[in-house]
Amino acid sequence: MRNLRFTISYDGTAYSGFQIQPQSDTIQYRLEKAVWMLTGETVKVISSGRTDAGVHAKAQVINFTTNSQIPVERWCLALNARLPKDIVAHTAEEVLPSFHARKAAKRKTYCYTIRTARFPDVFHRSYEYHHPTPLNVEAMREALPCLIGEHDFTSFCTVRTDKEVKVRTLYEARLETESDGFLDSGSIDRLRFFVSGNGFLYNMVRIMVGTLIQIGEGKRPSSDMQRILEAKDRALAGPTAEAKGLTMWKVDY
Amino acid sequence: MRNLRFTISYDGTAYSGFQIQPQSDTIQYRLEKAVWMLTGETVKVISSGRTDAGVHAKAQVINFTTNSQIPVERWCLALNARLPKDIVAHTAEEVLPSFHARKAAKRKTYCYTIRTARFPDVFHRSYEYHHPTPLNVEAMREALPCLIGEHDFTSFCTVRTDKEVKVRTLYEARLETESDGFLDSGSIDRLRFFVSGNGFLYNMVRIMVGTLIQIGEGKRPSSDMQRILEAKDRALAGPTAEAKGLTMWKVDY
Repeated sequence: MRNLRFTISYDGTAYSGFQIQPQSDTIQYRLEKAVWMLTGETVKVISSGRTDAGVHAKAQVINFTTNSQIPVERWCLALNARLPKDIVAHTAEEVLPSFHARKAAKRKTYCYTIRTARFPDVFHRSYEYHHPTPLNVEAMREALPCLIGEHDFTSFCTVRTDKEVKVRTLYEARLETESDGFLDSGSIDRLRFFVSGNGFLYNMVRIMVGTLIQIGEGKRPSSDMQRILEAKDRALAGPTAEAKGLTMWKVDY
Repeated sequence: MRNLRFTISYDGTAYSGFQIQPQSDTIQYRLEKAVWMLTGETVKVISSGRTDAGVHAKAQVINFTTNSQIPVERWCLALNARLPKDIVAHTAEEVLPSFHARKAAKRKTYCYTIRTARFPDVFHRSYEYHHPTPLNVEAMREALPCLIGEHDFTSFCTVRTDKEVKVRTLYEARLETESDGFLDSGSIDRLRFFVSGNGFLYNMVRIMVGTLIQIGEGKRPSSDMQRILEAKDRALAGPTAEAKGLTMWKVDY
């Protein structure tokens, strides 16, 4: 058996998330179907982490084992020909039998994009959350340092979860601004929240973003982030931000 | 009567171009329908220039006259609420009765995007043409200077046209490279061809791009561009490049 590792990207708009579920169209289902169409094998695709319904991936990492002797350099083209247009394999390599895309992941990075211009950008409308009024970026940035390091992130985890240990380590949390540089040059049209850690709880990034947006709107002080973190109570944090703004950005091994 | 001018953007994927046609869904039809839903008036929307089926616009300019007394600052939000998600009005202003979006346009800029990485970018798949092998950018750039200035562009105009005068002036034609900066940092993943002029013939940018791609592939020398231009014969130029890579970028008045 060979163990193959791929970098894939997907537009999650049309899918019920990564993980296979009955009567649902999922990324995992489409990948396993493509492998079956190519090799006749039923494989189990392992990802670095599941993404929710509507969440995208720029460079998700997956692996599966196969008996196929197709040379590794032909796999991406062969899979892409059997995948829908919104799922694309970019790189393929043969790895040691012990490699496991989730267990071996050292650092995952997500990006949440908020468009803050008055009107949506038609070309990115499926990949960013539209907040039609400006946000206080400095206040949002002040709320970020307390998140770095090892913490119990219970407050930023949906109550619908089976994970008992809620301790994770964040390595980086930063907010970047972008301008369209076009219709109103100089104005901030888009915020990108990049967050890296050793792992993320269910809805963790989206609940952080929901809280950050309330801070940016002036509905809460920046200091609320630390207060919420320490309380270990989901009810104190902000709402779960819309899935379409979230993209799994990259995974380091 | 008030004359209103708007900047609009649209994802042209789902439309049969800008201009109203029987039994077709077009941008103009959607705009006029939105105005009718808002005001009850039947207006005629004038654009800076028609775009073909599948061609996008980042900042198209339109105008129309109306008896409505709705304040100008409310128009974009009101129209956007009545337009499909793939057409967005960004700015509105009241202009002199004499303003005509096409006749007053001084300079139009188009951008044609070619993705040259091996596999498509899922997030831009509707807005760029995928050419899965690298192109010789230097050879393509060498072909551009001869296009600048006033020329008869008959060779770069579809034969299906009713325009008799094929003389136009190009002010700028440049090719920019972009890297995803990610999967294979340093590699060129995307080319953007920006071209500005006082006007464009039917399919002119797409035929130039089809010719440029042949030059980039090494199928023709860079000097062919001037030879084709001087011959005034459409049959000598390359094919018409796919519509989805083309975006009307901006219009100057």
